[in-house]
Amino acid sequence: VSEERSWWGWGLAARALTDGEMRVLAERVGILLPLDGAVAPVPPVPALGPPRVRPPASLASMLSGDDRGRAAHAYGKAYRDVVRALAGRIDHPPDLVAWPDTEAAVAAVLDWAGETGVAVVPYGGGSSVVGGVEYRGDGPWLSMDLRKLAGVGEVDEVNLTARAAAGTVGPALEAALKPHGLTLRHFPQSFEFSTVGGWIATRAGGHFATGPTHIDDLVQALRVVTPVGVGESARVPASGAGPAPDRLFLGSEGILGIITAAWLRVRRRPRVTAAATIAFGADGDGVAAARAIVQSGLQPANCRLLDPLEAALQAGVRDGGARLLLGFESADAPVDALLEHAVEICRAHGGVASRSVDGEGTAGTWRETFLRAPYVRDALVRLGVVVETIETACTWDRFPALHRAVVDAAHAAGPPGTTHVTYRFTHVYPDGPAPYFTFMAPAPRGAEVECWDRIKAAVNDAIAAHGGTVTHHHAVGRDHRRWYDAERPPPFDAALRAAKAALDPRGILNPGVLIDP
Amino acid sequence: VSEERSWWGWGLAARALTDGEMRVLAERVGILLPLDGAVAPVPPVPALGPPRVRPPASLASMLSGDDRGRAAHAYGKAYRDVVRALAGRIDHPPDLVAWPDTEAAVAAVLDWAGETGVAVVPYGGGSSVVGGVEYRGDGPWLSMDLRKLAGVGEVDEVNLTARAAAGTVGPALEAALKPHGLTLRHFPQSFEFSTVGGWIATRAGGHFATGPTHIDDLVQALRVVTPVGVGESARVPASGAGPAPDRLFLGSEGILGIITAAWLRVRRRPRVTAAATIAFGADGDGVAAARAIVQSGLQPANCRLLDPLEAALQAGVRDGGARLLLGFESADAPVDALLEHAVEICRAHGGVASRSVDGEGTAGTWRETFLRAPYVRDALVRLGVVVETIETACTWDRFPALHRAVVDAAHAAGPPGTTHVTYRFTHVYPDGPAPYFTFMAPAPRGAEVECWDRIKAAVNDAIAAHGGTVTHHHAVGRDHRRWYDAERPPPFDAALRAAKAALDPRGILNPGVLIDP
Repeated sequence: VSEERSWWGWGLAARALTDGEMRVLAERVGILLPLDGAVAPVPPVPALGPPRVRPPASLASMLSGDDRGRAAHAYGKAYRDVVRALAGRIDHPPDLVAWPDTEAAVAAVLDWAGETGVAVVPYGGGSSVVGGVEYRGDGPWLSMDLRKLAGVGEVDEVNLTARAAAGTVGPALEAALKPHGLTLRHFPQSFEFSTVGGWIATRAGGHFATGPTHIDDLVQALRVVTPVGVGESARVPASGAGPAPDRLFLGSEGILGIITAAWLRVRRRPRVTAAATIAFGADGDGVAAARAIVQSGLQPANCRLLDPLEAALQAGVRDGGARLLLGFESADAPVDALLEHAVEICRAHGGVASRSVDGEGTAGTWRETFLRAPYVRDALVRLGVVVETIETACTWDRFPALHRAVVDAAHAAGPPGTTHVTYRFTHVYPDGPAPYFTFMAPAPRGAEVECWDRIKAAVNDAIAAHGGTVTHHHAVGRDHRRWYDAERPPPFDAALRAAKAALDPRGILNPGVLIDP
Repeated sequence: VSEERSWWGWGLAARALTDGEMRVLAERVGILLPLDGAVAPVPPVPALGPPRVRPPASLASMLSGDDRGRAAHAYGKAYRDVVRALAGRIDHPPDLVAWPDTEAAVAAVLDWAGETGVAVVPYGGGSSVVGGVEYRGDGPWLSMDLRKLAGVGEVDEVNLTARAAAGTVGPALEAALKPHGLTLRHFPQSFEFSTVGGWIATRAGGHFATGPTHIDDLVQALRVVTPVGVGESARVPASGAGPAPDRLFLGSEGILGIITAAWLRVRRRPRVTAAATIAFGADGDGVAAARAIVQSGLQPANCRLLDPLEAALQAGVRDGGARLLLGFESADAPVDALLEHAVEICRAHGGVASRSVDGEGTAGTWRETFLRAPYVRDALVRLGVVVETIETACTWDRFPALHRAVVDAAHAAGPPGTTHVTYRFTHVYPDGPAPYFTFMAPAPRGAEVECWDRIKAAVNDAIAAHGGTVTHHHAVGRDHRRWYDAERPPPFDAALRAAKAALDPRGILNPGVLIDP
């Protein structure tokens, strides 16, 4: 498989669905949705105007202005982005793409950009689905691709940590850890293409359904280059010295500085596993079971509830029931008694368990579907389907009403009678679940983005009205600004603006994301 | 027992060691240290000059200027503070003590203080051992005691959360949770007297040796009053929306605002427990065992290593060996297999296990000693012993050299030949331990504080030189400033200063703590 990245859609160009796969998909989706039978073609890379800025000679070797690179860095991978790219429409392409391969180069680009008033949008894997890597202003800007600032500098078996440069992508990190019997085991859906720095900047959600699963908890120390200077936090397992410095940069989405490296907490590769799939007649029983499990003090690695439609579409379930995918794992501590206990809890809530061999059965089907999903999403776009995922987190008591409101909002905002909504829990906490909603509807050709925007706004309004956060792990970017502005407490807003003004006095870093300075 | 708080020392006046207990203690300590036989008397509350500011009529009912209250709020509970109080010396007493009982009252006091240039030092339980509640400037100041802003407003059994006002002390919180079968199970040594708001402002360390144990992880949402406005974070189990707002106020030590309330994550009271005490000949084997346990993925509730001298002094161990106190607990999930596995790991490192019935044996002895320790510390001060605890956290590879350096530094800085250093691990992480050092030496009468300062500085220098953080859970206050200034990364320093200027533009909040604005 060629390693060439797609310029218009997800991941590798060669892994996009084949025509044959597209036909099978169209048939399957056609059962749910009326499709018009058309398949949007992939256009050639559009011709862009010449860059409006010229790099100085000292930086010329790391700044490129070719159309394909600029087009590929113009957008993230949201539905909106794929639709626009397929239409050959590149709004506000970056004038240049910077490829710094050292921290000094990052600083040099920031200096030049600050002096010349060029906005800088940091780019890791470019997998943002919230407009996080797309500049929407009118001035010149550059996309700073950090993937040449890559590599795992040290693997520390004594302390179970590893130092990785920010541009290291998931598979490269895991490949460096594997010979040591270690893993970060942080698998966002973008894992194959997203970067350590991107995970940190967006507070990526990991693959453990419970326990410390966010990249926030896996960062031991981090290094950041800002327009006013460089710094690295102390490499200690814990500290109570003042507000946690790393937490200000975790989730800062590129507006405060460029994360260049991090010490990450890794773990021994799991060798002891136990998994089960639990069938529930109604998803409400599954919700109650998931809550009981996580509130019991058990910390299953996997505790993913699929609602009946999601179970049918994603895991091939035929009985109309919900499924709870349950798994425990450890490098060497016993887990069988823990799984047994969790299964007992499920039985008490009406669940019927089948023990699964790891990697097979429903859980295995689901995992493959998970990694393939973004390519399928691109294919659905071409088939004329509006498709989106919106995730949140709320307290347990609020979930039923939030769920109803989201479904109602999507039905009201989407094409009448043909808008489908499913959900799964990607993570569960003692104080609430992280529901992940998927929407599908036939797209009005030519007005796809408007339709998507309408559904998204209605659903986000419903989520906010029912006490959910605007994002659990997709980040804020530019698309979630309205709800984030309402969610951000005023004192923190004032502090964040002040921090931004202090660290990025010229306001060149990712303008429009999180706040308007 | 009278509930009257001691004005000069720890906790309740009536719980200070009796004369008989003092004699027993003197005999025991006399084996280790040469004592002069004198016992410093407790002086009467010194007469303070009149307050330099007069409260406006509208606030008069909540601001008091009596000498006893002012003296009791002048200091925290560090060794330095007890020595000075016993000498009848109150440097910079607060001019007033504010007792707001509503959030509006907090804001009104802040407004008045801002207008009149009176510094405000927030006071929770007053148990700071780092000069966190003591103003050292020359201008007028008030101590804002938040203990009337107390109470548990709501206990939420569905989401396992509770909303507590900031001034709620540990026992009051637990008493409100107990009828619901719930507990925060957050037991800093100051538990009986310290407050929810104080825990949050100082990032208190909880009683779990592993896993989520810091108050940081137990805060679901918090409410803060700043000189420029009020705000409360979203009550959600998790969010990836921007930098975590609560993390800026966690550890802010009163310089950014007054925390007035928080939603806390509570849990069902543990009912399933299993504990063992493991004897190790050398503490190095215990270190290796503790590391292996926490890196195995096990999350023992208790995993406290006592070095040989600490085991002898604190737990009555007579064989000259180290002890690892190991415990697992759960509201209902099984824990026996987990303890067995941890004990197996200890055996592989040369440990000899004795199963303990919870609350008895070495673990039980240790727990009682733990809660009584601050009163004993006060008695030691009166007996003429310099005694101090200094805690840090470092990576596993750095611990042996850090330990040696700390011992050497204390021996070099303290009275020659009679300075004793012990340590325990209070918390262990996969990437390192949190060692907690205790120093004891005969105090040069009349120069106690200088001796204490000298040892403390030498030890903190040694810790910093060997990669330890300046504090794991005692906070920075004023006494740890020098090392915190060196530890704080420059970009975060700039951001924190900017946040301070934005939220506290007149610089009235706890001046001298964390940063000099």
